[in-house]
Formats: sequence, C-alpha cells, structure tokens
Amino acid sequence: MASQRLRIATIGQGFMGKAHSNAFRQVKHFFDIPYELELAVLCGRDKPSLNRMAARWDWEDVSTDWRETVARPDIDIVDIAAPNNLHAPIAIAAAKAGKIVWCEKPLAVSPEESRQMVEAARHVRTMTWFNYRRVPAIAFARELVKQDMIGIPYHYRATYLQEWGSDPTRPANWKTDPAQAGSGVLGDLMTHSIDTAMYLNGPIAEVQALQRTFAANRHVDDATLALVRFENGSVGSFEATRYATGAKNRNAFELHGANGAIRFNLEDLNRLEFVDATEARNLQGPRNILVTGPDHPYWTNYWKPAHIIGYEHTFISAVADFLLAMALDEPFQPDFEDAHRVQLVVDAIARAAASGGRVAVDRA
Amino acid sequence: MASQRLRIATIGQGFMGKAHSNAFRQVKHFFDIPYELELAVLCGRDKPSLNRMAARWDWEDVSTDWRETVARPDIDIVDIAAPNNLHAPIAIAAAKAGKIVWCEKPLAVSPEESRQMVEAARHVRTMTWFNYRRVPAIAFARELVKQDMIGIPYHYRATYLQEWGSDPTRPANWKTDPAQAGSGVLGDLMTHSIDTAMYLNGPIAEVQALQRTFAANRHVDDATLALVRFENGSVGSFEATRYATGAKNRNAFELHGANGAIRFNLEDLNRLEFVDATEARNLQGPRNILVTGPDHPYWTNYWKPAHIIGYEHTFISAVADFLLAMALDEPFQPDFEDAHRVQLVVDAIARAAASGGRVAVDRA
Amino acid sequence: MASQRLRIATIGQGFMGKAHSNAFRQVKHFFDIPYELELAVLCGRDKPSLNRMAARWDWEDVSTDWRETVARPDIDIVDIAAPNNLHAPIAIAAAKAGKIVWCEKPLAVSPEESRQMVEAARHVRTMTWFNYRRVPAIAFARELVKQDMIGIPYHYRATYLQEWGSDPTRPANWKTDPAQAGSGVLGDLMTHSIDTAMYLNGPIAEVQALQRTFAANRHVDDATLALVRFENGSVGSFEATRYATGAKNRNAFELHGANGAIRFNLEDLNRLEFVDATEARNLQGPRNILVTGPDHPYWTNYWKPAHIIGYEHTFISAVADFLLAMALDEPFQPDFEDAHRVQLVVDAIARAAASGGRVAVDRA
Amino acid sequence: MASQRLRIATIGQGFMGKAHSNAFRQVKHFFDIPYELELAVLCGRDKPSLNRMAARWDWEDVSTDWRETVARPDIDIVDIAAPNNLHAPIAIAAAKAGKIVWCEKPLAVSPEESRQMVEAARHVRTMTWFNYRRVPAIAFARELVKQDMIGIPYHYRATYLQEWGSDPTRPANWKTDPAQAGSGVLGDLMTHSIDTAMYLNGPIAEVQALQRTFAANRHVDDATLALVRFENGSVGSFEATRYATGAKNRNAFELHGANGAIRFNLEDLNRLEFVDATEARNLQGPRNILVTGPDHPYWTNYWKPAHIIGYEHTFISAVADFLLAMALDEPFQPDFEDAHRVQLVVDAIARAAASGGRVAVDRA
Repeated sequence: MASQRLRIATIGQGFMGKAHSNAFRQVKHFFDIPYELELAVLCGRDKPSLNRMAARWDWEDVSTDWRETVARPDIDIVDIAAPNNLHAPIAIAAAKAGKIVWCEKPLAVSPEESRQMVEAARHVRTMTWFNYRRVPAIAFARELVKQDMIGIPYHYRATYLQEWGSDPTRPANWKTDPAQAGSGVLGDLMTHSIDTAMYLNGPIAEVQALQRTFAANRHVDDATLALVRFENGSVGSFEATRYATGAKNRNAFELHGANGAIRFNLEDLNRLEFVDATEARNLQGPRNILVTGPDHPYWTNYWKPAHIIGYEHTFISAVADFLLAMALDEPFQPDFEDAHRVQLVVDAIARAAASGGRVAVDRA
Repeated sequence: MASQRLRIATIGQGFMGKAHSNAFRQVKHFFDIPYELELAVLCGRDKPSLNRMAARWDWEDVSTDWRETVARPDIDIVDIAAPNNLHAPIAIAAAKAGKIVWCEKPLAVSPEESRQMVEAARHVRTMTWFNYRRVPAIAFARELVKQDMIGIPYHYRATYLQEWGSDPTRPANWKTDPAQAGSGVLGDLMTHSIDTAMYLNGPIAEVQALQRTFAANRHVDDATLALVRFENGSVGSFEATRYATGAKNRNAFELHGANGAIRFNLEDLNRLEFVDATEARNLQGPRNILVTGPDHPYWTNYWKPAHIIGYEHTFISAVADFLLAMALDEPFQPDFEDAHRVQLVVDAIARAAASGGRVAVDRA
Repeated sequence: MASQRLRIATIGQGFMGKAHSNAFRQVKHFFDIPYELELAVLCGRDKPSLNRMAARWDWEDVSTDWRETVARPDIDIVDIAAPNNLHAPIAIAAAKAGKIVWCEKPLAVSPEESRQMVEAARHVRTMTWFNYRRVPAIAFARELVKQDMIGIPYHYRATYLQEWGSDPTRPANWKTDPAQAGSGVLGDLMTHSIDTAMYLNGPIAEVQALQRTFAANRHVDDATLALVRFENGSVGSFEATRYATGAKNRNAFELHGANGAIRFNLEDLNRLEFVDATEARNLQGPRNILVTGPDHPYWTNYWKPAHIIGYEHTFISAVADFLLAMALDEPFQPDFEDAHRVQLVVDAIARAAASGGRVAVDRA
Repeated sequence: MASQRLRIATIGQGFMGKAHSNAFRQVKHFFDIPYELELAVLCGRDKPSLNRMAARWDWEDVSTDWRETVARPDIDIVDIAAPNNLHAPIAIAAAKAGKIVWCEKPLAVSPEESRQMVEAARHVRTMTWFNYRRVPAIAFARELVKQDMIGIPYHYRATYLQEWGSDPTRPANWKTDPAQAGSGVLGDLMTHSIDTAMYLNGPIAEVQALQRTFAANRHVDDATLALVRFENGSVGSFEATRYATGAKNRNAFELHGANGAIRFNLEDLNRLEFVDATEARNLQGPRNILVTGPDHPYWTNYWKPAHIIGYEHTFISAVADFLLAMALDEPFQPDFEDAHRVQLVVDAIARAAASGGRVAVDRA
C-alpha cells in the first residue's frame, strides 16, 4: 500500500486534544489506511502542560501561537479542538492556507460564522468531529433506516443528559463562559443530538424551544428543550441539560416508524435496541443487540464479538473513514456543510426560545 | 367496624366498566373499609352485552338510560365510565341529585365543562379516576418528594407512548371520534401524565406545544408534545402518542432534583428507579427498587414482597382510599378540582399547539 | 352454559389460603367456566383469625378440624394449603372420600408419601398448585418450545433467590421447622424451579447437589444447589437460597437451544426474554417481550395489552384451566403425578447432597 | 521520572498478541510509568502474517523460533500468548534466562506444569494475564469487599457463556484441540471466573462438577458446571459453556453477603450492580453504578465520567500496574502463584467431573 505522509497540527490541549491524539496514534493499528499520520505540532496556551502532553503522545513540536502553526508549510491537516469562538478564525485561516481542516463541534458560535467557514473551505477537505456517527450502533442504526427497517418515521426523541451543572464545587471553565462557548448545553450537547437526528431522520423544518439557566451567576443555558418538525413529516423532541441528577453522559435517542423502532444510549454504546414491527406480533419486543459482531460496522477492525469498545474508538473510526474517503477521492461526512446545517438548527432553537414561538430553520 | 351500605351505579360498560367492577368486588378482600359496597346498576347502551357483563360481575340491575339511573333514590354513588362528552351532563345531574360522583378521566372535554362540574359538585364528595396515583411506586415517589429526597426540582420528563394508532386493521371507536372524545392522545393519555406531574412536582405555569394527526382520515391528535415551565421553577416536557412502535403502554416519567432523581414506567409498575445524589459519589447509580415491600404504600394489603401486583390494583386502592377518607371525613384526592386543574393544562396545550406560541395556564 | 355448583373446602388460612380464596372469587370474572364455585368451608387452626378471614372472603363456614371438613358430604373440592407434612394425610383422606383434590406444593415431604397420594387419588381429579405454569410468559415459553423455536436444548439454568433468611428479626415459622416443612428451600422454592424445568425441558435423569444451613440454630437447608442431566441430553443447574441479599423473589430460569433461548424472572412476570438464533445474525439479540398481548396465553381474559397482571392471576388461571379441562373431560396438568415426579427429583437432590456423589432420579 | 528501557518479546500472533501489542503501545499514553517499553520481537509460526502484524504495531523484529527469541540477551520481558501447551516450556525457559515473564491464561494444562513454572520463576517477576481483575468495576468490587460492604459472604455465582460452539460453520482451531488447549471451556473461560472468584471471595475448598461435549467429533468440554464450597463458608456455582445461544461474551458473576451484594457482566463492563442491605429497607434495590467516575479505579487515567472504555483497557491497566509495582519493588498480582492456585481448582473440577463425587482442592 502506498503510504503518503500527512502531518497534523492540533490546536487544543484539553480533553479533545487527548481524544484526537489517541485517534491519530491508534488508527493505523486497526485500519489499513494509505497514509502515514505524523503528529507534528500540538498547539495550546499553557506551555508546561503542553510540553507534558506532547511528550506523552510523542508530538514532534509544540506551539502557543495558532497563527504561526497554521501558517507552517509542513502541515497538511489543521485539527481544531480550541474553544468554540476560535473555530472560525482558525478554520478560515487554515482553509485559506490550503490545509485539510478538522474541527470540533459545534462548528461555530453562529450560522454567520459557520457559513463563512463553509465558504472558505470550499476547496479543501473538511471534517467536523461529530464522532458519534462512528459509534457502531449508530452506524448500524443508519443502515437499518436505509434498508427501510424503520419505515415511515413518526417520532424522534433525543435527550443529552448530564448532571455536573448542579455541582457547586465544580470550577468554571470556558464551557460556561458565553464569550468563548457561544452557548451552554445547546452548542455543547444538543448539537450532537441534532447531528445524529439529521443523520438518521433528515432535515429539521421548524422548531419551538425553551431554555433555562439554573445557576445564579451563569450566563449560558443549563437546559434547552425543543420540539421539532422534520421535513419528512415526523415530529420530535430534543432535550439537553447539565442538571439531570443521576445521568452521567446519557446521550440517548429513539426513532419510531411504521416498520420498527430503534433506541440508543451512549452510556451503553455497544448496544442498540431494535423493534421489528413486521414480525409475528406475539414475538415482538425491543431486542437488545450487542452491535459488536462480524456483521456490524467497524467491528472486524477491533476485537472479537462482545469484547466491547469505548468512547475513544469513535474518533479512531472517524479518522479512518476520512482518510479512506480521501484516498478514494470520495466525499466524507460530516463535513463543514453538515455542521453548518446543524448550526442553522441551533440558531433557530435559540431564536425560538427567545421569542416563544415557532421558528422555521433557515435553508442555507 | 360499622358497615354502612353504599349502592353504586356505574355508567359505562367498556374496559373501564370492567376495571371498576373489579375494584368494587375486590376492595373488601384487601382493605378494612367501613362500608359494604353494593353493585346496584350497570348502565350502558348495548343491552345484550350489558346483561352478560352484569351477570359476570353480579350487578343487581341493568339500565340503558343514564338519566333514570342517576335519578334512582337507592343509588349512593354514581360512577362514570362513559365517553368523555357525557361526563359533564352525567356528573352534574348526579351531583345535583346529591350523589357521590366518581368520574373517569379526562374529567371533561373543556375547562368550561369541568368548571361547571366542580361547581355542581361543591357539596358532594368526588373522585376522578386518575388511578395511577395509587400505583405503589408512584405513591412512594410522592413520599420521596415530600421527604425532600429529590430536593430542588430541575427537570420533569413524561412520555405516554402507545403503538396501536398505526395499526390500520384496528377498528375506529369513540376514542378517535372528536365529538365523543374531545381530543386524541392529549385527553386520553397525556392527562394521566399531567396529573402525575402535578401530583409530584406541583402546578404548571406555562406551556408550548405541537400536535399532529398521522392517520389520513382521523380528526383527533395522534401525537401531542409539550414543553412546560412549572411554578416551582423547574422545566419539563410531555409527549403522548399512539404511533410509538414497540411501546405498548409506556406511561413513563422522570424527575431530576438537586438531591436525587426518580424514574418510572407503567409497563413495570412494581418498580421505581431512584438515584440518591447525596451519598458517596462512587456508589451513586440508579437503583431499581421493587416497590413491593412491607414499608411501601399499599403493600401489606396485598401479597408478600415481590409477589407483584398489576394494573387493576390501582383501582382497588383508589376506592379504598376514597372510602377510608370518607369514613374519617377527610379530603380525598384527586377530586374534581384536581381534575379541573389538569383540564386547564390540557386547554393551554391545545391553544399553544394551535398558536405556536407560549401560553399561560389559566388559574381557575 | 350449564352451571354446576362446586363446593370448596380450603384447609389452610395462611398466605396460600388467601391466594386461593382470591382465585375462587375471581375466576368467574375473567373466565367463562361452566361451574359455580361455592366457598363452603375454610379450615384452620386459629379460630379468631379464621373467622376474620372467612368474613373477608365470604366463606360460608369455618372449621378447625380437617378430618371433619374432608368428611362433609356437601364438599366437592378439598383444597390443601396446610403445612407440608399434612398434605399426604389430608389428600389421601379426601381422595378416599371421592373429592376432587387440590394441593399446594411441595406435594409431600417424601416420595413415599407422594406415591401414596398418587395411588389414593387415582380415581379423582387432582391439581398441584404449581401455579407458575400459568404465568402467561411461562405458558408462552412452553409454546415456543413446542413450536421448536428453541430447538435442540443444551442448557437450562434456574435460580430461586430470596433474601429473608438472613434477617435475624424474622420470626420462625413452620417453613423452618423440619418436622412440618420436610425441607427448607429445596421443597419450598426449588420445587417450583424443578416443575417449570420439567414442563419446559422434560425429565431429569441424574443430579449432583450441595446443601447448606447458614443460620446457627436452623435445621433445614438455607441453600440448595444442584447440577443436573436432563433425559434429552441437555445439562443444567438449579439454585435456591434464602440468603441472596437483594433478591426478593427472583424465580428465574433460562434455556438455551440450537434455535433460540428464553429467559424469565418472576419479579418481572409480565415479560419473557427471547433470542431467535435463526434470524440474520446482525439483528440477533435478547428481545424483551411483554407477554401481555392478544396473541399471548390468558391475556384476552384479563386487561388491555401491557396493562399488566400480577402474582395472584396465576392462581386464577390455574383454577380456570382445571375447571375447563374437567368440563371437557380432558386431563389437567400439573396433577399429583407431575408433582410426584418433582418429588422424585427432590429426593434425588437430597440424597446427592448427603452423599456428595451423582444420583439417578428414580423413575416412579 | 527516570525512564528505563524494557524490551519485550511476545510469543503469539493471534488475538491475544494483538491485545498485548495494543497495551504496550497505549500504556504510556494513559499512565505515568517509569519505563520505556520497546516492542522488540514478535514471535509466531506464520511468517507472512507475522510480518504484517509486526508492521502494523511497529515491532522491531520478528521470529518464528521461540527458543531463539527467549535466549536473546536484549530481551527483558517474555510475553507468552501461544497455545496453552507451550506456556510451560516457554515460561520455564524464559524464567531460567532471567526474564520477566508474562503469560496468558490458563497458565498451564496441568497443575504439575504450573507448579514447575512457579518453581522456575521464583526469582523473576511474573504476571498472568487474568486481565479482568483490571476491569474498573471488578477492581471496585474488590474495594467494596475489602471495606466490608458485602459482609459475611453467603453465595457466589459465576457464569461464562458464549454461543459460538454450536455454529457448525466455525472452523476448528487450537482451542478445540485437546493436545494444544488442554481443555475446552474449563481452561479457556472458567479460569477467568475462578480467578475473579478467588480475588473477591478467597480460596475454594471443595468442588463437584459435570462436563459435557455436545459436538459430535470434539474432544474438549463444551460445557463445564461446578458447585463449590469456599474456605470462608460460602457456597457457589460456576458454569461455562460455548453453547449458550444469545450470549456473546457473558462473563458474569454475583456475590451475596450479609451487608450487600454485587453483580457484574463483562458485556457491560463499565457497570457494576450493587445492593446495600444496610440502608433503609424501602430504599434498597440493585443500583446500577457506572464505574466511570473520578473516584473509581483507573478512571482518571482514561476519559471523562461515563465516556466508557472497552475490553482492551484491561490489558493496558494490567501492564501499568505491573510496571508501577516493579518500580516500587512491590508485589504484583495475579502472578504465577495465583494462576497456579487457579490451576489447582481446574484440576479438582476435572477430577470431580470424571468421578462424579466431591473433590477437595489441592493446597499446593
């Protein structure tokens, strides 16, 4: 296999920087990819911890200047894991410099920004890190939808529930700073739910919403709830909160259609619940499928059946899919355009929450 | 204990008539009540089946005329299990005749009607058959709320999901006839969710909503979704549908507060999930409590621990509680006023769905 | 339908007496049976409580003398719910008097006794209260076995776990008195497991076993464990204990065969887990069937789909099945012969536990 | 931290070779270890696939001669993942050459062999790959036991259920060849269960057992069942099979004690069920703990709470623990002695199955 070198610079040294570093190191161990990834520059703001992290993951170099990093001619891929308000300037600069651009979600803090990012990146390959599309169970859910196993869709319900918001001992970070994050759970959590929903059930036409901040001195939404109408005629609800006591990382959804239904929870990401409504009625029931077999997405790349995988593998598989698509000159999704469409829904939800009324999602 | 005779007339010979008949027969077997219930008149529209049903449950008499039945001087309790549009006229007539009135939910097809019913019944004892308050797990949930085990409430989420709506072989009945039912899932299913929510989390201040009819020639809501703000500051969502493939009778809710959380599903009505957020963090997790022990509501009346009970027992316990409250001259809930307050929320949801905007719930 | 009167005398005023009384009162409400059951005599040892219980359930008469009761010419059915050591003398006397005999499990305290009971009852109709055969999910499991949905059986695993044994505040009762009970969990709990196993998977050929008493001054087995070989070539294990902290009434089993598998837990008796191993491999998974639909055993007699039933309904359905079989002059199971076969396994397990070796189950 | 180089040779190129390679590559990314692991030699029998695997994981060198490999002076650690019958000769040679020795389970095919291995390795550090001790939930279970949260133990129940044995399309491999594997599920699966049981509940004193081969032309046990008596007075059962339709990799156990109970299933390895029997009775119930928080074993090394990990992480954590113990000159477990004690139980089970009687486990 030919093995072209691809040199990466990751901007961001937090939790996502770790998840990305791991994906870059692991992808070749589990996938046959025709590229050699090189971890060239890790860029962040805190030099001492940056050095420690670079040593741990064998990054060649570190930098505290993203502009300089993006400008380096030896970099092929700019990977953005910085606070949300930096996504647009970095991505636009990188795209203008002709780099491949990978960017964390939410893509931007406004649809204006994300529109500019799409525009700037029109001639480069992009990926948005909606990594949960690569959960085997979610990829398998998509297969079931495509094979008409769900049939005419009626209902889609998604929740993303965490509990840490109500913990007063928790230090503030950029995620609760509106200037850096743009929003609270809407951008941080609900964008995952929206991307998955559109992946499985198509575009969203119209929304209603409700937002609430529980913490006295916080300025982002602690909870966002929305009702939606999908273009395909189904209805649905979305709910994200950091105040759901007992829920650690409950990114869950269900889709009910004429032929069947599916249900998923990220806390049990190796499983998908499926109801086949076309079989004998007395045998129908939600079946709990371990999506960990030789006939399931990604599985042959990893371990034996039911020797389960975890959160980090979704990043590895995303990188693999991107590189394989690139090698074949095929499109890859989710790219910036997909993420911009999520941003349009986010924007509609924020406006609907503010107005109290129904708001149509912008088309572009 | 003294044993006063109470003679009942039930108006309605359908599924609810059966559930009520059973409760009347069973209550003395499991509870010490100071009354002797007599099944005096079963009133319905179809004489042959009425006779069969009366024979099965040993009703003394049958009638096809509710006015005549209500007017009988030998009747102490008028129990209404007729189509929704008949609730108001029957209840008002019965109350005027000085009867105790028990009425199925939804109490009425409009808040105007339910307001008149409350008014008419001001001097008689009433019960609305929101029987799920007597599920041991729900009664226990209420105890936990009262004992501050949930703490400051943040989120309430309720769904009532059934699947039969999408079955084209299903014959139409009065539940899908707007003239008789008033509404579809909003009145039939979501009223249960609303009553339970208000029982556990207090009054609802404001709503937004979305309704949809999937069936081509149906004129009631197949799906209703709502977002709500409770008076106590928490937010929530409600969803009811007859198009949730795979869900048989999934009347479920969860409540998240600062101290803990609870979760319930009627399909597993002997269980309550509880999270105690005040204990050591590494031991926290949703615990699956079989609410079937000697320290749980109603349990000593029935069987040994974990020798589970079913749907019908909620009716039996409701009758017992009503009669015990009457014997002690204490108030009983849910009465017509409680059900009227549910009706006000129902009305606000219908108006919100029509307008697309936020609607405040009327206070009276 | 003709309606012959059948007059019952129940010997036993404890928990089983209550469960039986309820079944006798309820059967006509849910089943069309060509008999009128009359609750004639309730027989027990404690007069005051006997009177209270008779009043509650409307027994015509009470007695503290089982011999006198059994001898009464106006009694058609003698129903035995007394301590185990009384089963044989009462049943034999009743059978000799030509009565229909219903007897609680375990049928006897030894196979010698149960053999005599079978012999004595050769010319009367009998039922043993292995009521769990009438759990809809277990009856449905039997249908699946018969339809070859499980295929060649490999493994059967049963546990009956309770926790009350380790509670030192619990008063002693006849169940922990070897003179009255014959054994501890082996007779009380494991007989249920054995009957269900033989119902679903056929005769047991050979056993090994281990028994243990944890309580210092107790003289019956607190825990019994057994390994078995079924005649059909499958292997299995049984375990019963009153020391399984956290288990309330966990009467559970699973059966794995070449075509599929089933799993059940009495604490969730409205559900059956089923795996269909013949369908597409990537769709296989344990499906959680609510055995509460129009195509499931007994369901049309009770409530709407997923309006769940409880423990007590297994007694009601057993009485109904017995009476319907009698009306049609068809055999009914489980009768005394079935229960004697369970007793033979019980005996083999006790001997195996004592010897430490493998013991063949006696054939008759 | 100082960083001494440790050069590894892994003998074995199969599934375990992959799992070990991954652990060696990943350990430094998640743990601060004072060693630099070098993947020096990958040794196997099939040269072409050996080369591919070495390239994928960046092994420096390959070899098809384990003796030569073990003899290399530049190797510090010999890691054995070859068929079971090769464990003893390789380990003994490696130990004699003064190497650190890591060996897959079962340690040997007989207690004679494992005794010799212990003897030969008396002066070197050893690890047996009972990697499941490093499942965070199992390590946490051990903490609960140590903190007396379980109390006096009564019952231990373990199953290891897989289903692939009954698939006739499955090609034979060394695991079903008695010459190479020594046994079937007893050595392959039940050894995991036994090691975990002894880790949590101490030594096993006595066993009874049953074994069965279902496949016509197979010569190892397809199913092994055992009843055991632990030295601490508790009783238990073990069951392993490759014929449990519907079970993919169900390595499950439960332990019931006077103060509480725990339950685990490897298919959901991020969770532990825990019952606290000391709290208010009406709040007791199995709680489903996501063992993925900052106060749980290993978690701070990996991801955020509930961002779950998988099978492979147990190997990573095992390597980390071994190296950290070595750096501190502390003992590490499970070593060869622990694995030899498992082998003694395996041997007792095999003898008990053959004889049909109770067999005491050898002490050394």
